[in-house]
Order: sequence, then structure tokens, then C-alpha cells
Amino acid sequence: MTFEVTILGSNSALPAHGRHPTSQVVNQNESLFLVDCGEGTQMQLSKYKIRRSKINHIFISHLHGDHYYGLIGLLTSYHLLKRMEPLHLYGPRGLKEIIDVNFKYSDTRLVYPLNSHEIDCAGNDIIFESDQLTISTLPMNHRIPCCGFLFRQKQSGRKILAEKIASYQIPHSTIPNLRKGEDIQRGEHKIPNDELTTDPPLPKTYAYCSDTLYTEEFLNLIQGADLMYHETTFMDESKGRAELTFHATTLQAGLIAKKAAVKNLLIGHFSSKYEDLNLLLEETKSVFTNTELAEEGKVFKI
Amino acid sequence: MTFEVTILGSNSALPAHGRHPTSQVVNQNESLFLVDCGEGTQMQLSKYKIRRSKINHIFISHLHGDHYYGLIGLLTSYHLLKRMEPLHLYGPRGLKEIIDVNFKYSDTRLVYPLNSHEIDCAGNDIIFESDQLTISTLPMNHRIPCCGFLFRQKQSGRKILAEKIASYQIPHSTIPNLRKGEDIQRGEHKIPNDELTTDPPLPKTYAYCSDTLYTEEFLNLIQGADLMYHETTFMDESKGRAELTFHATTLQAGLIAKKAAVKNLLIGHFSSKYEDLNLLLEETKSVFTNTELAEEGKVFKI
Repeated sequence: MTFEVTILGSNSALPAHGRHPTSQVVNQNESLFLVDCGEGTQMQLSKYKIRRSKINHIFISHLHGDHYYGLIGLLTSYHLLKRMEPLHLYGPRGLKEIIDVNFKYSDTRLVYPLNSHEIDCAGNDIIFESDQLTISTLPMNHRIPCCGFLFRQKQSGRKILAEKIASYQIPHSTIPNLRKGEDIQRGEHKIPNDELTTDPPLPKTYAYCSDTLYTEEFLNLIQGADLMYHETTFMDESKGRAELTFHATTLQAGLIAKKAAVKNLLIGHFSSKYEDLNLLLEETKSVFTNTELAEEGKVFKI
Repeated sequence: MTFEVTILGSNSALPAHGRHPTSQVVNQNESLFLVDCGEGTQMQLSKYKIRRSKINHIFISHLHGDHYYGLIGLLTSYHLLKRMEPLHLYGPRGLKEIIDVNFKYSDTRLVYPLNSHEIDCAGNDIIFESDQLTISTLPMNHRIPCCGFLFRQKQSGRKILAEKIASYQIPHSTIPNLRKGEDIQRGEHKIPNDELTTDPPLPKTYAYCSDTLYTEEFLNLIQGADLMYHETTFMDESKGRAELTFHATTLQAGLIAKKAAVKNLLIGHFSSKYEDLNLLLEETKSVFTNTELAEEGKVFKI
């Protein structure tokens, strides 16, 4: 089952060095979830051939422009392209007002249903749930209300061994029970479940930690995550500037990854002062080896 | 004296085929005037190496997203880059409210003075004046209030012939009067002005005609313009669709150019349905020969 994240934008504050402001798209079994939407995100979706019609849920971490200035353009394009499917938008208080005032003056009445969900950035709430996935908020510590998002796959049922089902002539109606782990009773004789199934894959977790000052507040919520994205606006030499602007450094992101015992770390939200990102990568790796750069267009399996 | 326009975006409605939404920059003697600001304009400024610090005046024709969704990003970048110079913004009612609501939630207090000027899109008012140029509004006929902008160079003073000034030993203090066309009186003897000066270049005019249904309302205002940009969203075969959406066609743009007896026509704001723009160019040329495509990155002398 696909569970991966594609990077659309990796820069902080403003576009620079060919890098775009923050945006990512999470693909869970061909359902696409857009996370943040800096200016130019719709162009990036086209560039990387991501089918925007498959996005039904958009999550905005906070209302600094580098995380949402591309949203109004994307919403408008959906309208012009005559989208029918409802779109769910999750973001902090104020996002709906911003959209409404734009559409008031352009006299736009969207042709598709836009369902706005206001999120509480201080909480750890499940804001989306399907039979395969939950998405919950992670409290960040930023200059304005800001949250991260935790994508957690649900445990799927046991994996059916098709050839065994055939050879035992097991009726298809019993498969849901087999998935749950039940045995098959045939008169006196029992066919044990593990003769017919194998363990399902372990559910995976992706933690998107948006703009934040170094904080351990969400550490227990992301323990053991398969992949964590953590902002690394600055290198260690600028940790004073990071603190002033409520951002994190390479070493701090590495430390969080280590303390949370995540499997892999993805760093992004780079300051425009850095053209060569390898310096940030090396510095983060000095604390946490399994680190990669959130480079635009790259796809990371979770 | 430089007087030229650089195209930053040429598409209508949404970005497509690598084309961006509408934006242009007019260079008058190294003062830059930004006209409309679709999403991605700040990236286009970087791409074409246009010094954004030289832009002190921004004009927004109307509040459809493809003409202003890049504005908030540009204003924010100026803030982050610590601009000092005042910035003047001209746009219809509502633009200030849109900016204010964004900055309210991001808690942004601009470090530079942003002076908003609300324009009346139904009028023909001078909204900017320097010693070299006036800019006035042109009334368009669109679904929401929309105006064009007329850039008119002022007549400059007569051109001084430096070698004649030297040989007659004319004092420099009299040069302003010479520029105005006055003769020099030396006792009984008169040195006629045209012995010392030549005719100045004719002042040039650029008419930016933004989104509009075919209308002759502004025809008398742009008569004889050196260059007219006119939207051509559609080809003639889609003139019904043009009318429905308050847009113009190739043939209509050509007709306006002909009736206004402009010297050159620039067409743009192309519908995403057209990948090959040469079809639009050829169709427009069938009415008005001196037509060019407003292709991104191209610079047109006025």
C-alpha cells in the first residue's frame, strides 16, 4: 500500500535559489493530502505531475504566508476547472475569513463544496479519520498559532494466503473473520488462522513538524515515527536568530529525531541564506544519521 | 530614454503550458511600474533578473485572482528583505481589505510604508504624475470593476546641441530657457533657439487594456498610442464564450487597434485552451498587422 510524501516546496519565508515556499503532498493508498500550500504550489503540482483532482483534503499549519499564499490560487483553479468533489480544508482561525474576503471581491461562488474545518493549534486532536488512516494535530511553538500533523496508518487486517484459501476451499464469506484472526471450525476439525493468513504489515506513521522553536512538547506523540519532517530553518551558528524568529536549527531537529527515536528524518524550510543545502544535511547528520533533505520533487517512502 | 514593457505573465485564469497569470513591468527611464501581479510574479521577477527594489508603484487592474494573487507574496517579501522605500499601490476598492486581513492573522507590521490608493475603475483619472510621465485609468467593461492604465510620457524640453553651446559660450544658467524654446538675446544680436537646439523626441504612450468585453468606450483615450496591450483571451470561434465571460477575442483586439490607430498591438491573457499561440497571432494579424504576442520574458520597446 502506497504511503509516501512528495516535496513541493522547501524554502522558508520567500522563494529563493529556485526553491519554493513550503508544501508537501502525502499519498496514502492513492488518496492525496496536501500539507501547506505556499505560493506557486499549483505550478509545482503540475511540474511533478501530481493529479490535483485526487486531493480532497488540505491542511494548513499556520497563517504565515510561506505556508498558505498558494492556497487561494489553487482553490480558484479547482473552481475554474469545474471540480465537483467536496474539498476539506483544515487550518487555524482566520483562514476562512481570508478566503471569504478574496472571493467577495472577485464575486466567486465556488462550483464545488468547500468545507472549512477550524483547528485548535494548541491541541492534539484527531481531525481526520478513514478506515485506513488518522490525522491528528501536533502542537508547535511558533510566533503565531501553528500546528504539525501526524499521519498514522491504522492496523490493517491479517494478510490472506490466496492459495491456501483455494486448497482448503474456504468460502469467501468467512474472509472478513479470517482477517480479524479467527480460526475456521469444520465440525471437530479446526484450521488455525495462521495456516491461512500471515501478519499484516505494521502500520506506519509520518510526523510533519511545521515551524517551531525547539520544543519537546510533542515528543511523546511522535515516538518511533517511521518518518519525521522537521523544520531546520538555520544552521547551529544562527541559533540566536532561530530563537528570535521561533525557528529550529539542524542540531535541534536532529536532537528531536533522536529523542523521539524516529526511524528517518527529513529536514526542510531552509533559510534563503543557504544556497548549498549539504551543509545543513551534514550538520544534522552529526546528531542523527538517517537524515535526508526535503528537496523539491523528491518522493520519500514512509 | 528607456520606455519599455517586460512581460512576466501572459495566461488567463490559471497557470498552464508553462505560462503564468498576468503581470508586466513598465520601465520608464529606470523607474519600474508593476502592472498586475498574478501568482508567481515574484518568481518571474527573479527569473528575468528585474530588480524588484526599483519598483515603487504597483497597479492592479481588478480583483480577479489571476491579476493579483501574487501581490501579497511580493509585499511580504519586500518586508522580509527589509525594504525601506515607500511603496505605492493602486487598485480597486477591496484590495486594501484583502491585504489587511492577511497581515492581521500573520501579525505582520510592514517595515516599509505601504501607501494604498483606491482607484475608480469607471473613470479616466490621472493617478500618478512625475516630471516625465502621467499614468491614468482607462475604463474597461468586465464582470467586476476593472480598469486599464495609460502611460503617457510628458513632452521633454528641446535637445541642447552641446558643441553650439560651447562655441557661442552660452552660460549654463540659460539652458532651462533654451530647453523651453527661447532665443538668446545678446545686445542687438539674437541667436535663434533652433541654432542651439533640436526638436526633442516625441513623447510616447503605452495603453494597457486589461480584461474587457469588446468596448469602444476608451477608444478616444488611446488614439495613436505607440503600443497598446489588449487582452485576447479567445479566438473568434469562441466569441460567444468571450462575451459570456466579459472577455475579448483576437479579431476584436485587432479592431480596437485599428480604430484607435495605435502603432503596435501586443496581445495576451490567453485562455488555457490554447497551447499554440501562433493561431491567435495570425488571426489578430488578419485585422491588424503590427501585432506581437505578449510572451513571457520578452521586452517590447514603446
